[in-house]
Amino acid sequence: MSIATFRAFRLLVAFCALSGWTSANAQQKNLRDYGIAIGVLQPGSLNAITDVPGVAVGQKTLVQGDDVRTGVTAILPYAGNVFQDKVPAAVYVGNGFGKLTGTTQIDELGNIETPIVLTNTLSVPTAADALIDYTFSFPANASVRSVNPVVGETNDGYLNDIRGRHVSKQDVLDAIESATGGPVVQGNVGAGTGTVAFGFKGGIGTSSRKLPPSLGGYTVGVLVQTNFGGVLSVDGVPVGKALHKYYLSDKLGDSPDGSCMIVVATDAPLEARNLKRLAKRAMLGLGRTGGIASDGSGDYAIAFSTNAAVRVPYESDDPVQKTEVLRNDAMSPLFMAAIEATEEAIINSLFHAQGTTGVDHHHVDALPVGKVLRIMQQHGYRVAR
Amino acid sequence: MSIATFRAFRLLVAFCALSGWTSANAQQKNLRDYGIAIGVLQPGSLNAITDVPGVAVGQKTLVQGDDVRTGVTAILPYAGNVFQDKVPAAVYVGNGFGKLTGTTQIDELGNIETPIVLTNTLSVPTAADALIDYTFSFPANASVRSVNPVVGETNDGYLNDIRGRHVSKQDVLDAIESATGGPVVQGNVGAGTGTVAFGFKGGIGTSSRKLPPSLGGYTVGVLVQTNFGGVLSVDGVPVGKALHKYYLSDKLGDSPDGSCMIVVATDAPLEARNLKRLAKRAMLGLGRTGGIASDGSGDYAIAFSTNAAVRVPYESDDPVQKTEVLRNDAMSPLFMAAIEATEEAIINSLFHAQGTTGVDHHHVDALPVGKVLRIMQQHGYRVAR
Amino acid sequence: MSIATFRAFRLLVAFCALSGWTSANAQQKNLRDYGIAIGVLQPGSLNAITDVPGVAVGQKTLVQGDDVRTGVTAILPYAGNVFQDKVPAAVYVGNGFGKLTGTTQIDELGNIETPIVLTNTLSVPTAADALIDYTFSFPANASVRSVNPVVGETNDGYLNDIRGRHVSKQDVLDAIESATGGPVVQGNVGAGTGTVAFGFKGGIGTSSRKLPPSLGGYTVGVLVQTNFGGVLSVDGVPVGKALHKYYLSDKLGDSPDGSCMIVVATDAPLEARNLKRLAKRAMLGLGRTGGIASDGSGDYAIAFSTNAAVRVPYESDDPVQKTEVLRNDAMSPLFMAAIEATEEAIINSLFHAQGTTGVDHHHVDALPVGKVLRIMQQHGYRVAR
Amino acid sequence: MSIATFRAFRLLVAFCALSGWTSANAQQKNLRDYGIAIGVLQPGSLNAITDVPGVAVGQKTLVQGDDVRTGVTAILPYAGNVFQDKVPAAVYVGNGFGKLTGTTQIDELGNIETPIVLTNTLSVPTAADALIDYTFSFPANASVRSVNPVVGETNDGYLNDIRGRHVSKQDVLDAIESATGGPVVQGNVGAGTGTVAFGFKGGIGTSSRKLPPSLGGYTVGVLVQTNFGGVLSVDGVPVGKALHKYYLSDKLGDSPDGSCMIVVATDAPLEARNLKRLAKRAMLGLGRTGGIASDGSGDYAIAFSTNAAVRVPYESDDPVQKTEVLRNDAMSPLFMAAIEATEEAIINSLFHAQGTTGVDHHHVDALPVGKVLRIMQQHGYRVAR
Repeated sequence: MSIATFRAFRLLVAFCALSGWTSANAQQKNLRDYGIAIGVLQPGSLNAITDVPGVAVGQKTLVQGDDVRTGVTAILPYAGNVFQDKVPAAVYVGNGFGKLTGTTQIDELGNIETPIVLTNTLSVPTAADALIDYTFSFPANASVRSVNPVVGETNDGYLNDIRGRHVSKQDVLDAIESATGGPVVQGNVGAGTGTVAFGFKGGIGTSSRKLPPSLGGYTVGVLVQTNFGGVLSVDGVPVGKALHKYYLSDKLGDSPDGSCMIVVATDAPLEARNLKRLAKRAMLGLGRTGGIASDGSGDYAIAFSTNAAVRVPYESDDPVQKTEVLRNDAMSPLFMAAIEATEEAIINSLFHAQGTTGVDHHHVDALPVGKVLRIMQQHGYRVAR
Repeated sequence: MSIATFRAFRLLVAFCALSGWTSANAQQKNLRDYGIAIGVLQPGSLNAITDVPGVAVGQKTLVQGDDVRTGVTAILPYAGNVFQDKVPAAVYVGNGFGKLTGTTQIDELGNIETPIVLTNTLSVPTAADALIDYTFSFPANASVRSVNPVVGETNDGYLNDIRGRHVSKQDVLDAIESATGGPVVQGNVGAGTGTVAFGFKGGIGTSSRKLPPSLGGYTVGVLVQTNFGGVLSVDGVPVGKALHKYYLSDKLGDSPDGSCMIVVATDAPLEARNLKRLAKRAMLGLGRTGGIASDGSGDYAIAFSTNAAVRVPYESDDPVQKTEVLRNDAMSPLFMAAIEATEEAIINSLFHAQGTTGVDHHHVDALPVGKVLRIMQQHGYRVAR
Repeated sequence: MSIATFRAFRLLVAFCALSGWTSANAQQKNLRDYGIAIGVLQPGSLNAITDVPGVAVGQKTLVQGDDVRTGVTAILPYAGNVFQDKVPAAVYVGNGFGKLTGTTQIDELGNIETPIVLTNTLSVPTAADALIDYTFSFPANASVRSVNPVVGETNDGYLNDIRGRHVSKQDVLDAIESATGGPVVQGNVGAGTGTVAFGFKGGIGTSSRKLPPSLGGYTVGVLVQTNFGGVLSVDGVPVGKALHKYYLSDKLGDSPDGSCMIVVATDAPLEARNLKRLAKRAMLGLGRTGGIASDGSGDYAIAFSTNAAVRVPYESDDPVQKTEVLRNDAMSPLFMAAIEATEEAIINSLFHAQGTTGVDHHHVDALPVGKVLRIMQQHGYRVAR
Repeated sequence: MSIATFRAFRLLVAFCALSGWTSANAQQKNLRDYGIAIGVLQPGSLNAITDVPGVAVGQKTLVQGDDVRTGVTAILPYAGNVFQDKVPAAVYVGNGFGKLTGTTQIDELGNIETPIVLTNTLSVPTAADALIDYTFSFPANASVRSVNPVVGETNDGYLNDIRGRHVSKQDVLDAIESATGGPVVQGNVGAGTGTVAFGFKGGIGTSSRKLPPSLGGYTVGVLVQTNFGGVLSVDGVPVGKALHKYYLSDKLGDSPDGSCMIVVATDAPLEARNLKRLAKRAMLGLGRTGGIASDGSGDYAIAFSTNAAVRVPYESDDPVQKTEVLRNDAMSPLFMAAIEATEEAIINSLFHAQGTTGVDHHHVDALPVGKVLRIMQQHGYRVAR
C-alpha cells in the first residue's frame, strides 16, 4: 500500500478508535454499577485514576485488518513538563518476567521524569524513543541530554501481530497528547486492546479510593493493563471455578501467563520509600482477583505522588529541599485503598472488555457478564441492573 | 518464687501445654472439615506442612498465670544436622516491620543452616541464642564457630506480658526436640499462643497442596503464625464485613497491625532464586484472606526445599556441586499451591484458635465459627457439619 | 542530503571505523605492556574478555562531521542463538542513574537471552529494537513473541551530539554481526567513542584473569565502557592528584558524573545468585581506580556464565534440569579475579583512548601516558617501554 | 569459680580494659600522623566518627585468661532516647555472610531506634537482648512492646573462644553507658579485640571527613571493625604484596574471610534512600584497601543521619512531617567523603592494633608499621615520624 493509502487507513483507524470503537466500550458498566462494591472504602467521583487531581490519561487504540490489536495508554502525573518537576515514584516487581524500562533509575533517584506509557512487549523500544522525543519537545528541555523513559508492557501476542511492532512513535505521542482528566475509557482500548485475562478478554481498567477527611482525605487511583491468569474471583466469588475456566483446570489452553501492569497514583505526600510500599500492596489486590503472578507474567506496580510538597525540581540553587512527607504509621489506610482499587480496576477491565478476534484467527471471548452476575446472585449478592 | 517452685510450675505448664490445652484445640476443625475447600488444588493427606516428607514441627506453649501467653514453634526441614547439610532457602519480605533474624545471610548464600524458630518479638534474641546451643549440641559441629540462627516472630504483646521475655532457651530447645512429622496442632499453641488476627484470636495454622503427578507430584506445605488484620475474607466471603469487625470500620480498636510469619516448605528441587519467588506468592494468599500488610505488620515468608538434590553440604572436597533444579517455566503450579495453602493455613489458624484472656485483663474472642459458617451459607456455600 | 549521498557517507564512516581509526587505536598499549601488573592473578592470553572461551565482541564506531562521536559495542556470550540457549546472568547496580534495559527480567529468571549491547544513553531504545530484530533473524525463533533486550549505556553527550540519536538499528546489527573472539580494540571505539573518564578521554577497555588449575582454572573477563570520574589511581598511584585533575579539586569542570558499564564474563559454572555476587565485586575494582559512583553516574555490572552445564534451553521436555554449580566457598578467587580485571580494564580504556574534539567544539585530552608513567616511576614502579 | 571470685575477676578485666590495655593502644598513631593523607578531603578535628556532632562511642574490652579476646563497641547517634526520636538509617550489604540484626525493619521504615552495637558473631543474641533492656530502661519507653535492636558482628573465633559466648548483657550495657564523644580508642578494643585483617591483627578504626562550607560543611564519620582479607593496599601502595602476605599468595593460612562492619554517620540531612547510597560507597573504600568481600566475609555498612530536620518522633499528632533533605545531586561530595573515611578508618585499625595471642595458642602479629612505612617511602611517600 502506498504511503498515502496507508495514511488514509491510519486516519480511519484513528477515527474508529476515537468514535465507534470506544463508544461501544462505553456501553459497558463497572462492577460497581451493578451494586457490587469491592472493599470497604469509597471510590472517588469518577472511580478512576483521574480522581487523583492532575492525573491525565491518554490512549491510542490500534485495530487494523485481521491482525493488529494493540495500542498505547499514557498516564501523566500532571499536565506539564514532568522532566523539570519530577514526581516521587517507585516500582515494585511482583514478577519480573517483563520489560518495564527505567526501573533502576527510579529505584536510585526516587522519581520519574516522563509520563508512564503502557504498550505491548515488543513496542517498548519505540515507546521509549517517543518519550525522549516528547521530553525534547519542551523548549525548557532544550539542553537535556539524559531522559529516563518509563514504559511498561504486557504481551498481546495472542490476538495481536506483535512481531509486526505496529505501534509508531507518533502513536505514542498521540496517546500522550490526547491525555486528559475525567472519565477513562476501559476495556479494549489503548494498551489493553489485545490483552487476555483469566482466559477472557482483558484490557484497561481503573478504579479509585478516597480516604475520609479524618484519615487525610487522600485519593489513591489505579489503572491496570490486564493480561494474566489464575482462578478468577469477583469480589471473592469463585467465578472462574463456576465457569470451569481457570489455570490447572482439566481444560487446555488456560495459560496463566501474560502480565499485569499496575499504575498507582496518589495525592498523599509520599516519598519513594513509602511509594514502594504502596506499590507492593497493589499485588495483594491482584491476588484477590485470583491472579497468581505466574512464571511467565510480568507483574509490576509503579506508584507516584502528585503532591506538590514532594515534587523535585530538575535543578535548584538550594541543595536542601524543604518537603513534607506522610509518616510511616499513617500509611495503612492508603495500603488498603491501593489493594481495593487494584482489585476493582482489574475486575472493571474484564467487565468492559469485548470479545475479540485477532491474528491467526485467534478469538477470545468477553467475560460473560450476565452469567457472572447470576453466579454472584447465587453467592448471596444482590445485583442492580 | 524459689527455683524449685518455679520448676514445678513450669512442669505444670508444660503438662498443660501437652495435654488439656492442646486437646482442647484438637476439638477444633479445619475449614475444609466443614466441606469448604479453598482453591482448586488438593491438599496432602495431613493438610499440613508436615505433608512435605521429612518436615517436622515442634511447639512449646507457655501459659502462666494471668499474663504469660506465648510460646515457640519450631520447623525442621528434616530430622538431622541441618548445619552439615544445609537446605536452599529464601526470605521474602512482605512488610519489614519485624525482627526476623538471618535474612541477609540467607539472601547471600541461598540456604539455611538451622531449624526455623517462631516466637514473640522480644524473645527473638533468646531463641537465636538457643539455636546456637542447638547447633553446637551436634558432635559433628564441634568446630563450628559461626551459626546463622533463623528466628521469626510476631508481637503477642496485647495478650502476653511480652516485656517479661518469658521464653527461655530451654523452651526453644524443648520445641525443637519435640518436633515430629504427623499432624500439627493449630490455634493457641506455640508461637501462636498469644496472637490476634482480624480482631479475633489468631495462632498457628497449617495447610498443604500436592500437585498431580503430571505436574511433578510435588508438595507445598505452609505453616503460619497469624497476628495481623485487615478485612477478613473466608474463601472470598466477606466475613469481616458481615461481622462488622474490620480495619477502618467505625468501631475502634481494630488495628490491622501485628504481623504474619509464613513458612513454606516444598520437596520440589528449587534453588534460592525460585524459592524466593515461591515465598513471594505466599503474600498473595495472605491478601486473599483480607490482610493488607499494614504499616505495623511484620509479614515475612520463608521458603525452603527439602529435596536431596539441592541440599548443600557444609564442606566438600569438590568445589563443583552436581544438582537438579526445576525450570522457571515449571514454577506456576507451585506458585498456585503456595497461594492456596497460605490462604487456607491462615483461615485454619482462626478456626482453631480459642478466646483468650491475658495481660492487663485483655481479652480476645475466638472467631465465632458457627456464625461464620452461617455467613458462608448465606453466600451459597454448603456447609458440612 | 539525499538518501544516496547519506548512504555513501555512512559507508565512508564505516570504512573509517574499520580501518584507520581503529588502527590508530591499535598503536596504544595496555598498562601491562609497560611492565605494570595490576593485582596478583595472571591475565589470560589476550588479557581481554575474549579469553573466556566463546565470548565474542563486535564494535561499530560512528565518527561523523564535527559532532557525531558515538557507537555500539556488542558482547556475545557465544556465537549462536542465545535466545534458544540462555546463559545465567545477573546485574548489580552500583549506582542506578542509568538506563540499562532488561534488569528486572534478568533478576527474576536469572538469565539473558540476547547479546549485551552498549551504546549511548539516548540510543538505548534503538539498540533494544535492533536486538529484537536480531533475535527474530534466527529461523529457530520464528514463533518467539517476547524478547528481553539487554542494552547498557553511558552518556557521551559532552563530545557527541547525543540528542541527534545517530545510532541506527543497522549500526547495532553491524556491531553484533562483526563480533569475533580474539583481541578487542580498546579506547575510542564502539560505545566508547565519545566517553570521558576522570576528565580524560575514556572508552572501551578490557582485561582478564585466569585462575590457576588448583583453583579450577576458570577465566574471568571484563569489558568496560568508561565515562565517570573521581580521583584517578593507576595501580594505587594517585595520578589524578599528581596531575591536579580530580573531582573537588579547585579547578572547575571536573564533574565525576557520567557512568560506567561493566560486563563480566566467566566460564565458571555459576548460577544467577553467584553471578550477582561476582558482578558486585566489579564495583570494588572501579573503586580502586578512584571512581566514586557519583550521583549522576550510572554504574552497572552485568555478569554471565558461558559454562555449558548451566545453560538454560528455552524449551525442554524435562521440567527438571541437571546442572553443576560452583559452591559458594569456591567463589573468592573469582571475586578477586573480577576486581583485578575490572580495575585493569578501566585503566586500559584510558591508556588506549585518544584526545577527541566533538560537538560544540568540546575537546577532551587523552590521558598523558608519558606523564603518567613518570609519576608511576616516582612512586617506585619500574616502567618497561 | 564462685560468683564473688568471678565478679572480682570481671572487675579486674574491666580495669585492664579501661587502663593499661587501652593506654597501650593509645601509643599507636594514625596513618595520617605519619604525614600520609588518604584522599583529597580534610578530616574533622578528631579524625573520628565522633566528629559528627552528637555521636558517641563506648567500648568494653574483654581479655580474660588465655582465650577470651572479644568485646563490644557501641555507637550512639546521639545521647538520649533514640527510640523516641528515631534517626534515618540504611544498611548496605556488601557481602551478606553475617548476622547483622534489624536489617529488614531498617529497610522498611528507614530508621533505627536503638544504638548500633558491634560484637562477635555468636554474641549477637546477647547484645540484641541487652539493647531491649537498654531501651526499656528509659521511663519514657515504659509502654514500648517492640524494639528493633541493631547488632553487627565479625567473627573473632581465631583468637577468641567464641563458642564460649563470653559477652554478657552487662558488658553491652557497660559499652553503651560509657559512650562519649571525643577521641575514639582504636585497635584491640571493644568489638575489635580479637579480629584479624589482611593476616594481621585488625580491630576498631575510625576516620572522618568534613566538607568545605561551599559544599554544605557536612561531616561524614566512619567507624570500622576490621576482620577481613585480600591484598593490603595502604593509600594505594601494595603493602600486602611487598610483605608477601596476601590472599592467594603461595603461603598458606591467609584466608580472606572474616568480615567488616562499617558504621557511617553524618550530620547531612539525608533520608533513608540517600543514606543507603552513602552506605554503599563505604564498600568502595574497603575495596581501596585491598578487601575483596570474600565469600566468607560479612561486609555491611550502616549509615545514619543525626540531622535534627530528619529525625522521626516515635509518635506524633500530625501524620505529616515537615522535613528537609539534601537533593540527590548534592550527594557526590558526601560519597567521596564516605569512601575516603572508610579507607582511612580501615588502615587506622591496622596501625593501632597490637599482636595478640589467644585461644588455642593462636597468634596474630600486628601490622609491622615500621616496615610498612619503609615500603611507603620506597613508593615515593615522605614519612613524618
